[in-house]
Amino acid sequence: MAKQISDLKLGILGGGQLGRMLIQEAINYNVTSLVLDPDTDAPCKHIANYFECGSITDFDTVYNFGKKADVITIEIEKVNIEALEQLEKEGKQVFPQSRVIRLIQDKGIQKQFFKENDIPTAPFQLVNNKDEMFNSSFSYPYILKQRRDGYDGKGVMRIENQYDIDKAFEGPCLIEQLIDFEKEIAVIVSRNSNGDVKTFPLVEMEFNPEANLVEFLISPSTYPLAVQERAETIAKNIASALNITGLLAVEMFITKNGEILVNELAPRPHNSGHQTIEGNYVSQFDQHLRAIFNLPLGDTRTISNSVMINLLGEKGHDGVARYHGLERVMAIDGVYVHLYGKKYTKPFRKMGHITIVDQNRENAVEKANYIKQTLKVIS
Amino acid sequence: MAKQISDLKLGILGGGQLGRMLIQEAINYNVTSLVLDPDTDAPCKHIANYFECGSITDFDTVYNFGKKADVITIEIEKVNIEALEQLEKEGKQVFPQSRVIRLIQDKGIQKQFFKENDIPTAPFQLVNNKDEMFNSSFSYPYILKQRRDGYDGKGVMRIENQYDIDKAFEGPCLIEQLIDFEKEIAVIVSRNSNGDVKTFPLVEMEFNPEANLVEFLISPSTYPLAVQERAETIAKNIASALNITGLLAVEMFITKNGEILVNELAPRPHNSGHQTIEGNYVSQFDQHLRAIFNLPLGDTRTISNSVMINLLGEKGHDGVARYHGLERVMAIDGVYVHLYGKKYTKPFRKMGHITIVDQNRENAVEKANYIKQTLKVIS
Repeated sequence: MAKQISDLKLGILGGGQLGRMLIQEAINYNVTSLVLDPDTDAPCKHIANYFECGSITDFDTVYNFGKKADVITIEIEKVNIEALEQLEKEGKQVFPQSRVIRLIQDKGIQKQFFKENDIPTAPFQLVNNKDEMFNSSFSYPYILKQRRDGYDGKGVMRIENQYDIDKAFEGPCLIEQLIDFEKEIAVIVSRNSNGDVKTFPLVEMEFNPEANLVEFLISPSTYPLAVQERAETIAKNIASALNITGLLAVEMFITKNGEILVNELAPRPHNSGHQTIEGNYVSQFDQHLRAIFNLPLGDTRTISNSVMINLLGEKGHDGVARYHGLERVMAIDGVYVHLYGKKYTKPFRKMGHITIVDQNRENAVEKANYIKQTLKVIS
Repeated sequence: MAKQISDLKLGILGGGQLGRMLIQEAINYNVTSLVLDPDTDAPCKHIANYFECGSITDFDTVYNFGKKADVITIEIEKVNIEALEQLEKEGKQVFPQSRVIRLIQDKGIQKQFFKENDIPTAPFQLVNNKDEMFNSSFSYPYILKQRRDGYDGKGVMRIENQYDIDKAFEGPCLIEQLIDFEKEIAVIVSRNSNGDVKTFPLVEMEFNPEANLVEFLISPSTYPLAVQERAETIAKNIASALNITGLLAVEMFITKNGEILVNELAPRPHNSGHQTIEGNYVSQFDQHLRAIFNLPLGDTRTISNSVMINLLGEKGHDGVARYHGLERVMAIDGVYVHLYGKKYTKPFRKMGHITIVDQNRENAVEKANYIKQTLKVIS
């Protein structure tokens, strides 16, 4: 008899909150979870069947870890690709595929992929050093992004004029035309090995300007149906062009004249899909499992309006985390608390998230505003 | 600063599926979970922060385990009460309280409690042996129940006539008038230490006649509002009379002439509340945590119609479990799979459950019937 999901060992590279929420779902399918993370106190540590403390960027560590699993996935892109390639050669299932992670690891290659596949994206130029920035014909101000290892707003800066180039990042970067966008939006798309593709409904994001992190997420979007369909089609086209197996988060800008431009991809569960746990029939984590185990994809429709708030460490607080105001927040109907099991807080660290579900969108937003003012992660 | 839920260690006596689903919720609050269970392969083993293999009925084992926790709860009533009493004396929080578990452990005392508190229940008589059964003035047929240790239909039999008394249970039992009921119904009520009380909406159950186990559960009930309110009031009255902290499942009969009679209590999450995970705003497991940590109780309203099916081991199958038809079931919209992490199946063993959520009640029931025919736990 063929192997079933409940017989399989899932290896996860990275043991943070995304891995943790993935395991919370995997428990429902009896999946055996193995986690590799360099942090001895990683959020996944106590809920994985097997936790290994080790580097996810070291060939030998990743390779030897991967040998223990049947299916290998990631919760962060910065992993050792060569080890994953070797595991694939030896017949292990690696989803997303190593070539997809390789492409997405490098924002320069990602942008070229968009260009080659007619995916709308902001004009850009690859630069290898500051000299090439000085010589660029790009007009100021523009956005400078490190090609590798940026995340959560790190590795991104705004260059106002030629004097800013002095403090620019070293090494390979891309410069990108500044987009006067109206809103950041996202679509999460999933694809299993059978080639079935499903998108979650479009969501809208509001960023914390200081930390450049998602602060609020509203689901579903209220953009006209035509805009929503256009965004979903773009996401599906990218998933098909990549031939990805797994989940793909597609972050986009919508400009003031209604144009949609793709900003970045993440080939895994993503912050822009946390509200699906309660707000949609299938959660992004369940959907990722369905995709990588080649099972039927779930129903992505929203059950209700929902708003997701990232619970970030307060400025000025560094130490053992305390959740001030939690009881008042739990007294509100339709509020779901997700703490990530991180012992220590620091400014802007993602410590958890809150989802508000309400049939009435305005009520959901009102509750979110109250919660944002009430709940603080302090030390 | 006062201790928060995320600082506290929750000790759970019993490591089966109820403990497992409780821990799945507790993860969201960073609660540290400690589990005691005699089975080295208990469903909780890999997801608890700390798992101890040991007897939950042995004084020393329970006492020493309880010393490690801040709050102690149960997922099964058959635990060592004296150890819990001692822990309470030493200042540990035990919820439900030991005196509530003691009362509920003995179905005879439970029935006397109903009588003393004007809780409607079927007429009964306590009997200590077969002689007392012969001498009883109860008319045949009647139901015979062992006072202690019955569960999932075990410890219950029907006595048709005096010849059946020969094969009756030994030891203290109660005999109960046979109720010509129309339906078995249940209300789960929760109460925190502040005295806040909330009920989940009434649900209807359909039993497997052979195994005497819940087979289908339909939520919410379609009984007239007056009936629903009556059932919820009974449940609240019991919770108040018991002065319980935690969750209390109240199983009831509704007779053909509309009378409600209380059958049995369970002071913990219960099979009749599994559908709340997806079908209601707050799940019974979340609510139990809120109650025992004295937090605001959640919103018990239904989000949608839901049907829960217990996934029982097929007859004639004994061995490593296989889930035949799982993929076809996962292809249906609004279907949620919960496997309990039990390696071995045997006839009628509870191996998991499936919840179907659908805005349309008839569709939900239709899907449930299809799933019941399609999904089989075999070896």
